[in-house]
Amino acid sequence: MIGLIFAAGILALVYSMYLIFHIARQPSGNQKMIDIAGAVRTGATAYLYRQYKTLLPIVVIAALIIGFALKSSIIGFAFAFGAFLSALAGYVGMQISVRTNVKVAEKAKKGLKQGLSLAFKGGAVTGFSVVAFGLLGVSIMYYFFQDPSLIVGFGFGASLICLFMRVGGGIYTKAADVGADLVGKVEKGIPEDDPRNPAVIADQVGDNVGDCAGMAADVFESYVVTLIAAMLLGLSIGPKGVFFPLMIGAVAVIGSLIGAFFVKLGKDNNIWKALNRGILVTALFSAIFFFFISKYYLNDLKYFFAALTGLGVTVLIGMITEYYTARDRKPVKEVAEASKTGAGTNIITGMAVGLQSTILPVLVIALAILLSFKFAGVYGIGLAALGMLSVTGIILAVDAFGPITDNAGGIAEMAGLPKNVRRVTDALDAVGNTTKAVTKGFAIGSAALAALSLFVAFSEAAHLQLADLSLLKPGVVIGLFIGAALPFLFSSFLMKAVGRAAFQIVEEVRRQFRTIKGLMQGKAQPDYKKCVDITTRAALREFIIPGILAISAPILVGFILGPAALGGLLAGSIVTGLLMALFLANSGAAWDNAKKYIEDGKFGGKGSDAHKAAVIGDTVGDPCKDTAGPSLNPLIKVLNMIALLFASLFIYTII
Amino acid sequence: MIGLIFAAGILALVYSMYLIFHIARQPSGNQKMIDIAGAVRTGATAYLYRQYKTLLPIVVIAALIIGFALKSSIIGFAFAFGAFLSALAGYVGMQISVRTNVKVAEKAKKGLKQGLSLAFKGGAVTGFSVVAFGLLGVSIMYYFFQDPSLIVGFGFGASLICLFMRVGGGIYTKAADVGADLVGKVEKGIPEDDPRNPAVIADQVGDNVGDCAGMAADVFESYVVTLIAAMLLGLSIGPKGVFFPLMIGAVAVIGSLIGAFFVKLGKDNNIWKALNRGILVTALFSAIFFFFISKYYLNDLKYFFAALTGLGVTVLIGMITEYYTARDRKPVKEVAEASKTGAGTNIITGMAVGLQSTILPVLVIALAILLSFKFAGVYGIGLAALGMLSVTGIILAVDAFGPITDNAGGIAEMAGLPKNVRRVTDALDAVGNTTKAVTKGFAIGSAALAALSLFVAFSEAAHLQLADLSLLKPGVVIGLFIGAALPFLFSSFLMKAVGRAAFQIVEEVRRQFRTIKGLMQGKAQPDYKKCVDITTRAALREFIIPGILAISAPILVGFILGPAALGGLLAGSIVTGLLMALFLANSGAAWDNAKKYIEDGKFGGKGSDAHKAAVIGDTVGDPCKDTAGPSLNPLIKVLNMIALLFASLFIYTII
Repeated sequence: MIGLIFAAGILALVYSMYLIFHIARQPSGNQKMIDIAGAVRTGATAYLYRQYKTLLPIVVIAALIIGFALKSSIIGFAFAFGAFLSALAGYVGMQISVRTNVKVAEKAKKGLKQGLSLAFKGGAVTGFSVVAFGLLGVSIMYYFFQDPSLIVGFGFGASLICLFMRVGGGIYTKAADVGADLVGKVEKGIPEDDPRNPAVIADQVGDNVGDCAGMAADVFESYVVTLIAAMLLGLSIGPKGVFFPLMIGAVAVIGSLIGAFFVKLGKDNNIWKALNRGILVTALFSAIFFFFISKYYLNDLKYFFAALTGLGVTVLIGMITEYYTARDRKPVKEVAEASKTGAGTNIITGMAVGLQSTILPVLVIALAILLSFKFAGVYGIGLAALGMLSVTGIILAVDAFGPITDNAGGIAEMAGLPKNVRRVTDALDAVGNTTKAVTKGFAIGSAALAALSLFVAFSEAAHLQLADLSLLKPGVVIGLFIGAALPFLFSSFLMKAVGRAAFQIVEEVRRQFRTIKGLMQGKAQPDYKKCVDITTRAALREFIIPGILAISAPILVGFILGPAALGGLLAGSIVTGLLMALFLANSGAAWDNAKKYIEDGKFGGKGSDAHKAAVIGDTVGDPCKDTAGPSLNPLIKVLNMIALLFASLFIYTII
Repeated sequence: MIGLIFAAGILALVYSMYLIFHIARQPSGNQKMIDIAGAVRTGATAYLYRQYKTLLPIVVIAALIIGFALKSSIIGFAFAFGAFLSALAGYVGMQISVRTNVKVAEKAKKGLKQGLSLAFKGGAVTGFSVVAFGLLGVSIMYYFFQDPSLIVGFGFGASLICLFMRVGGGIYTKAADVGADLVGKVEKGIPEDDPRNPAVIADQVGDNVGDCAGMAADVFESYVVTLIAAMLLGLSIGPKGVFFPLMIGAVAVIGSLIGAFFVKLGKDNNIWKALNRGILVTALFSAIFFFFISKYYLNDLKYFFAALTGLGVTVLIGMITEYYTARDRKPVKEVAEASKTGAGTNIITGMAVGLQSTILPVLVIALAILLSFKFAGVYGIGLAALGMLSVTGIILAVDAFGPITDNAGGIAEMAGLPKNVRRVTDALDAVGNTTKAVTKGFAIGSAALAALSLFVAFSEAAHLQLADLSLLKPGVVIGLFIGAALPFLFSSFLMKAVGRAAFQIVEEVRRQFRTIKGLMQGKAQPDYKKCVDITTRAALREFIIPGILAISAPILVGFILGPAALGGLLAGSIVTGLLMALFLANSGAAWDNAKKYIEDGKFGGKGSDAHKAAVIGDTVGDPCKDTAGPSLNPLIKVLNMIALLFASLFIYTII
């Protein structure tokens, strides 16, 4: 049986390899393009190496502590293995992106269809290799050790690395972006991606380390952690319940492979439709497969319905996110219209949109909890989370498409390619914004369901009874308050970190414009490396304190206030983590697209007062949607993984 | 015994009367001042009358529904009585404010000491009459009916009116403020409070209907609801436990009266110190009184310690709020400094400050829950909430001081009084900003503790056991998610409402500048009434939907999902209500004071680019801190009161 799981994982890996060789054969364009892409690749790789070098001692020490504290060298090793695979997922996601972008720019010369096809193939490498790593990693652990508590160590390794990569990458990408814009666009009046801007390469590097490496590690972690949670909850119905989640993962890989073949540009040239078709076909085939394995392996269709609930959440949250953040929908138009009376009203309206956008996803998730529990108890909730994440391969492929096309556009601009090339990359990039927002909604929703499954698993590991976790227990309420405050505090740290790092970039870019003669006239080269270097150091410095907060909070509360209070903390963090992530991601996307809506010529177009107001809104939205918001997903999962892993150590209860 | 409670209430009432007569005897200045003050008074009174006229049918219908649903005409009557007293508290608070402001402007001619003394006396009328209404209202209900469930009806009446007054007043004040500023300051470049601005009277009216009437109703409601919750929880230790909360209220009135006499300007001319001394003396004397009644009435000092915990929360939250929002502290300075790089960084930093400002109050409240429960069980939590609110008289006096001095400054400006008068009112007004922020922190913290007591009382009324409210029950988790999302949704409605209403004011002000010849040159009078009228109608229209949301959400969840899910909803709303209220109030205050810090001459002073950026931040902060933030307190209490009142009706449980 396990052989079939391995086979599915290997199939995904083989498909990724095939795509990698296919992409490698495509032309990279002229020397200038190759040089620019090379600079981005060097910067991104350098950042990742330094990040991993910083993380290596942390992982080793953490593995030792875990091994000693839990008296199991195997758990320590599992942790290190999970951390390694998470880092590898990020590495692959980024390497393929920095190699494909320039080839997409070159391909764009031939037209939209060819550009889309290649960019999606690049994204698919990330999507399928991440799923392969996750499925193979968990099934190898299962094959060798069978003991779920060892697999939890593996998941925690993935979570911890993912948290650092999300936080570091998020700070990097937005510090570079804001820093480049503040001097380039605002002070000097030069366009985005202008080669004269010293921070332009750092900005491109940021897209890759944040959106590619960070997102790949994030989704890898979600996938792994959800698999593990579902397996743990499956214990209640016996060994078949533990194995079933792996089967869901395996058949969904097949579904995703089928879906990937349906991503082709139709005659209407609608890119989003082409991508969305891939997702829907995947969901359809996965649902059919779920039906059969549920009927013939577990002999009960209730598990099929539970998993189906998760697929439904994926589809619904995608639609809701699209409504609140897409350029041609009412919310974004309202934000754009509010820009007419200035930046103040633009920001108030954007905040209101973000706040409002939380309610429907919350209701969808509440309904999913209700239904999946009605179908199959707490195991049902785990299966719903897994059902949602089963389509990770195709979703991540569609998401990784975004930064590739974004970079392709940047390279086209910097290399001075003809207007029609830029037009193709712009069209691809515009869809990239929607796919980014939709995937974020997916990542947030699945994180909440996954964390909820972990929370239940924690309560079982800590032997907490129903009454122990009652909201009438003051300890639980205290934990709830503290846990709910953590996402607020965490976001605050990250937003300040972006501000500080961006400030350093601003100073450096100003210095270069001041001291390098002929830079503004395009006669001299800026020192790109220096900006890359400053951002790298700033990002690696700033991720320490939030990281310590995430690790220490559950351990302190667990030891001082006891396991029930820790349970309260987990629940509180999941609830506000979900709400704040939705608020930050969706208001950020609404501000961004309101700006783009105006740039399309509405309300006075580029350069109008409304546009200036919208640019300020977009600046505010940047750290919200790309740094603080996305980091909340790994945060709530790290909190839950720590609690689950160390559940046996928390024994004293204060109240 | 009950006679002593009445005596304390009547004493507070008599003191308020004495102050009213004293204030009435003070001179109101020249005819121009009288005219301006008259216009403000007329506008404010007209708004309040129309608001009450709108609310009257709602109250009558609600009283009938409650009477029929609970089969008790007495509860229906109690509800109406509570609603009436809440409205009366708002009315008194506003009437005294609109009468004192012009006299303070006149008094300011004689100097700071006289101005401070009179303004504080005006505030004290509000503070002491609100406490008198609360204490007398609850003790009359107790005297006649003794049955706690009837008193709950009284509390719900207070809550509901308070919610509408907070929401309506909040929308009014900020719509007028933002509308006046956007055209006056930004487009026309005329100063604040300039008599040529057609919205200037509406702006002044807004201060009174929002900050005076709204705040008075809010604090009245907190006081009443907390008294009732503590009495309900006191049932567990017998009749003395029910009566003890009234005693705490009574002796704290004496403490507040003593404290009020200590509000006198010292030789250092430090206004905040004079006000703060009054609060600290009150806290000290109240603590001493609590000691004696706890020792000699309940014969156990543990109740004293529980109440003392609440007093400690009042003092600590005051200090924390002061740190995050005062002009000379690091957070505000950081926001001011971030204005140098534009509005984007100003807003990001302000958001970060607001998000960060949540953690310490949460820890203080968590500690208070822990301690008060350790001392005296759930009754201890009720007593802590009451201990916190016992000093309401003096706190509200200090708070109501703010809008009086703010208006006095506006009148001085519009009437063209000499510079030295404006200097005195400015000095008083500057402190008004700090007192406003500190009282807001107090109102938020006490609302959380009060709501928590109500939540416990609800669980008893609904006969929910420990295990019923377990976080492992999917129904509870679903409720938690939905409840946590309510403050987000509610805030979003209010922020959008301000935007819409402000937009109407902007259009009207622009129209008047365009069509009234000689207005800009000061040769013609603007049509103040028209702006007042538009704002009034907008505020009354916009408070309907949020009101329906607050009333229907708990009823729907209670009937469809059952009482346990409703319990989850209440807990979720308390947690995020607290966090969002702190975030919105403190970031708003930080933006406001960062602007003022720059206006003091830092980073280029008035008119610099940094100042322009800070003005945008202040505009964003306005609806956050004065509309959405303050409305969350009554929201969470209305949700809890409805659940408590109708607890017996929710019987079906879905999951």
